[in-house]
Amino acid sequence: MTTFAGLVPAAITPMTAAGQIHEEAFRRVLDFNLQAGAHGFWVAGGSGESIMLDDSENRRLAEMAAEEVSGRGFVIMHVGAPTTARAAALAEHAARVGATAICCVPPFFYRRTADEIAEHYRVVGAAADLPLFVYNLPSMTGVEITVELMQTIQDTVPQLVGLKHSSSLFANVYEFVAMGLQCFIGSGALMAPALALGAVGCVDGPPLMAPEAWMKIWAAHLAGDRAQMDEAQLQARAVITLVRQFGGGRFFGVMKAVLSHRIGMDCGDPRLPAAPLTAAQKREVIELAESLGLYPAA
Amino acid sequence: MTTFAGLVPAAITPMTAAGQIHEEAFRRVLDFNLQAGAHGFWVAGGSGESIMLDDSENRRLAEMAAEEVSGRGFVIMHVGAPTTARAAALAEHAARVGATAICCVPPFFYRRTADEIAEHYRVVGAAADLPLFVYNLPSMTGVEITVELMQTIQDTVPQLVGLKHSSSLFANVYEFVAMGLQCFIGSGALMAPALALGAVGCVDGPPLMAPEAWMKIWAAHLAGDRAQMDEAQLQARAVITLVRQFGGGRFFGVMKAVLSHRIGMDCGDPRLPAAPLTAAQKREVIELAESLGLYPAA
Amino acid sequence: MTTFAGLVPAAITPMTAAGQIHEEAFRRVLDFNLQAGAHGFWVAGGSGESIMLDDSENRRLAEMAAEEVSGRGFVIMHVGAPTTARAAALAEHAARVGATAICCVPPFFYRRTADEIAEHYRVVGAAADLPLFVYNLPSMTGVEITVELMQTIQDTVPQLVGLKHSSSLFANVYEFVAMGLQCFIGSGALMAPALALGAVGCVDGPPLMAPEAWMKIWAAHLAGDRAQMDEAQLQARAVITLVRQFGGGRFFGVMKAVLSHRIGMDCGDPRLPAAPLTAAQKREVIELAESLGLYPAA
Amino acid sequence: MTTFAGLVPAAITPMTAAGQIHEEAFRRVLDFNLQAGAHGFWVAGGSGESIMLDDSENRRLAEMAAEEVSGRGFVIMHVGAPTTARAAALAEHAARVGATAICCVPPFFYRRTADEIAEHYRVVGAAADLPLFVYNLPSMTGVEITVELMQTIQDTVPQLVGLKHSSSLFANVYEFVAMGLQCFIGSGALMAPALALGAVGCVDGPPLMAPEAWMKIWAAHLAGDRAQMDEAQLQARAVITLVRQFGGGRFFGVMKAVLSHRIGMDCGDPRLPAAPLTAAQKREVIELAESLGLYPAA
Repeated sequence: MTTFAGLVPAAITPMTAAGQIHEEAFRRVLDFNLQAGAHGFWVAGGSGESIMLDDSENRRLAEMAAEEVSGRGFVIMHVGAPTTARAAALAEHAARVGATAICCVPPFFYRRTADEIAEHYRVVGAAADLPLFVYNLPSMTGVEITVELMQTIQDTVPQLVGLKHSSSLFANVYEFVAMGLQCFIGSGALMAPALALGAVGCVDGPPLMAPEAWMKIWAAHLAGDRAQMDEAQLQARAVITLVRQFGGGRFFGVMKAVLSHRIGMDCGDPRLPAAPLTAAQKREVIELAESLGLYPAA
Repeated sequence: MTTFAGLVPAAITPMTAAGQIHEEAFRRVLDFNLQAGAHGFWVAGGSGESIMLDDSENRRLAEMAAEEVSGRGFVIMHVGAPTTARAAALAEHAARVGATAICCVPPFFYRRTADEIAEHYRVVGAAADLPLFVYNLPSMTGVEITVELMQTIQDTVPQLVGLKHSSSLFANVYEFVAMGLQCFIGSGALMAPALALGAVGCVDGPPLMAPEAWMKIWAAHLAGDRAQMDEAQLQARAVITLVRQFGGGRFFGVMKAVLSHRIGMDCGDPRLPAAPLTAAQKREVIELAESLGLYPAA
Repeated sequence: MTTFAGLVPAAITPMTAAGQIHEEAFRRVLDFNLQAGAHGFWVAGGSGESIMLDDSENRRLAEMAAEEVSGRGFVIMHVGAPTTARAAALAEHAARVGATAICCVPPFFYRRTADEIAEHYRVVGAAADLPLFVYNLPSMTGVEITVELMQTIQDTVPQLVGLKHSSSLFANVYEFVAMGLQCFIGSGALMAPALALGAVGCVDGPPLMAPEAWMKIWAAHLAGDRAQMDEAQLQARAVITLVRQFGGGRFFGVMKAVLSHRIGMDCGDPRLPAAPLTAAQKREVIELAESLGLYPAA
Repeated sequence: MTTFAGLVPAAITPMTAAGQIHEEAFRRVLDFNLQAGAHGFWVAGGSGESIMLDDSENRRLAEMAAEEVSGRGFVIMHVGAPTTARAAALAEHAARVGATAICCVPPFFYRRTADEIAEHYRVVGAAADLPLFVYNLPSMTGVEITVELMQTIQDTVPQLVGLKHSSSLFANVYEFVAMGLQCFIGSGALMAPALALGAVGCVDGPPLMAPEAWMKIWAAHLAGDRAQMDEAQLQARAVITLVRQFGGGRFFGVMKAVLSHRIGMDCGDPRLPAAPLTAAQKREVIELAESLGLYPAA
């Protein structure tokens, strides 16, 4: 049985100039992170342009991730969708092609009751029959997975094993850990303090650009060296500051620009309505990334 | 050129037992409302299960609405989608099959800048080249279309003619009217006061169940009979209370149950994760609807 | 028994250069409004610098308002305070010196339960044994008086007769009216539409500067002339725009500057931390006020 | 010069049966905490019933705290008030009677601009000319002290040395530390992770009841023993759970009941509108406190 722990970068979805998934670039991004020590991936989630992908694209990402990672780590495949039927179909597919686990945002746009949310997770969980992670992302979904709501889900969904916690209610990490859940902190800025609260690791986009920085946190954690852990966390924050260089909404573009540079293959632009970076902005972030000294130029 | 004004019920999307669009029921619902005097429809919006529909279903609804309404009113087709490309494709299709206008929620889930939102509307507006209504629905999209944001959109999108205002910032109706926009109030509970502020009409789901109640408000408005207008508004509120009988999230189910009864054809259940009404709940709402005396039993 | 209805300007608290209450100016402001037809006053509320006043100042305002208005209208005295004991003491005093009614914000700063809020109102209501108005001002108190909470208060407080509703949940006016409450709308921008929903009048600060504008709305309402009502409402909005000329937080300063001009006596500056207007800003708002043509220069 | 660091319990304000400050109990509570190792106190803040105290009571608390603590720790005196003048007068008094530092919530109730808030702090800071801590308590004040706002304050107020951060934006601890501020975390549940981010200590109410639990965190922090730190943090959380036993708003009552038991002197009830605990509830929390085994029965 898979142990879900460690550094789990959230994969971007590289695009060709024509706006299709750039399959080779996607594989290279994963491989590059595995070589840096990443333990697994969160695929087609918020950083992967999630709900901007068609279901057929989600399926292709699941296949490729399972193939590429094969035996070298774990794949937590995102299957969130506006209807239970679509999410369940993606979940069933993810299991079929070899994902290690699935993750799913709660239903969004329309407001749902706790029972409707739990039932959604029950159907989706049963469709994959894989370990299931709840994706707590209230800034985008409008739904805070409170301790009470998580309890309802836990009572309803036998496949539930954990969550990615991307909420401002940081102290709830404790509560989820106490419930026996494997809690990944959803902010790369808080990996060290979250590990201190019992979180099992970190899932976020910025580590995909610079896994080296977060692997140092993880190594220090394993070594029980808190001073080194805090120091590494401080360095990692510089990467996050870079990702937010042009405002929070431009994080896709920054990640794609830096990763293009690091893997030596163009990862393209995010889909509209996300505005692309200009050529000058791309140059700027690459220079900034190199100046951080966190990783060598490609 | 079409005058957009009056009562514009938001269409539900009737479903078969197998979960497909029930085409005949959809047409009957529109016809029933036209016979009651409705001036047009808001199709595939929030009350129409919107983002729970596939794009092919959205297209089919556009075709049917244009055919069914043909010459008897106007069709404002909702084309909102997570990517600009998908929304623009739906917009182009809506224009091609004869919709009178389009409407579009701002991009949701990911947070966007004002410029990204305006650019989204610019592309979508150009794709249809029909009158365009912004759909201000912050409770679901997480985006309040403020006066400032609307100004940016107005400066960017030549097709913009108005909006559906479903926000708690009621006094903004004044501002939008002062900007020369045709403002439909998005709450059936506020049709009369919104008309007093210069709104051109009402778009909401509950009027689809009982257009008679809201047509009285409209008639009184045209006659300049304010006392009658306020009285009619009070009666209409009873319908809204009924729609919320089992909590806000059950409004789909209530609307489908009552409309099934009124048109004599089963409109089915909403899609999951929206929980269906039980048989007992369906009976209860039909009895309540009849007891309101707002319309005769079918 | 007093009928609470009509235009009820919220009184400012004029200050001397030394920062004390300017008693003569306070009386003149009330007299000026009574001569313009105002039906009563809301004293020491949000526009009156409320919680920035000492209890002894609140008492002095109550005495002066009762004396000045005496027989020419009604005085609704604000008695809100952080502790129940202080609010009750102010309530008892207001009754003793001749206020017609009291009003009270719910406890603020600390979050309270519905029962604690209702008990607060019960004690305060009993202390005055005058008609009591709840002051629903969530933007400042952090407490939305929902329909459910108001029901709890109504079940607990025999003196409750109504409320000032300064919340974005405009449609709740209906609900409060249906509960038998006398609902004053707390936004001068919405007097006409609120009257259409059953509100009994308007309590707000801007009407104090230009009661003429709002008296036209009231006269048209009594005459049942809706077109005139809407026209007058539109004119009144220009006054509100003026009040917000330098940002929402400067409304005290604008009101004091314009009223100084209108009554011919300096009403001073608001207390710090509210920043005073500069001399140039004061001139600017007086010129703007005159240019509105809503009232003659003093 | 004082080093502000470590465990800084937020003092309650014990009351007599007649509702006056119980001076002897207040002194005993401080002494008990000093004996347990507390480094200083946060006096008359949120846990001390703050804005429910009269200014004369605030002054008496300042005097007593300075006398009682004298040389055994530091006293950070809260001087927040609705007007700048009142806050400045309390600040001047605190300095005069020997407080070590002052702290102050931003202006509340009315919304203020960044400039108004900074000016408020400037005047208050100058009045005491002691080290000044900002009190970031958005759940009560409605004002989030963002990094930008803090920068404005830092540019304006020479006495500024740090803050108590009681906000859900946990990651901002990093930012405030990077600005050179001494950041106390305002949640006893997050002392260990906050220390890991560079916070200098913890200010909160629950530690006042059971300083032993938090002193273990501090000792482990000084020893660099992270495993022990996390273990101690976990134990401390049980105290916080106890404080919230009857809902968040009852925390005053629980703290007073447990402290009455620990110091052997009745600390009374919180002021209304805070509902007092029943006798049965008081017994229940004392039993629970003893069962935690964190401290011996008094």
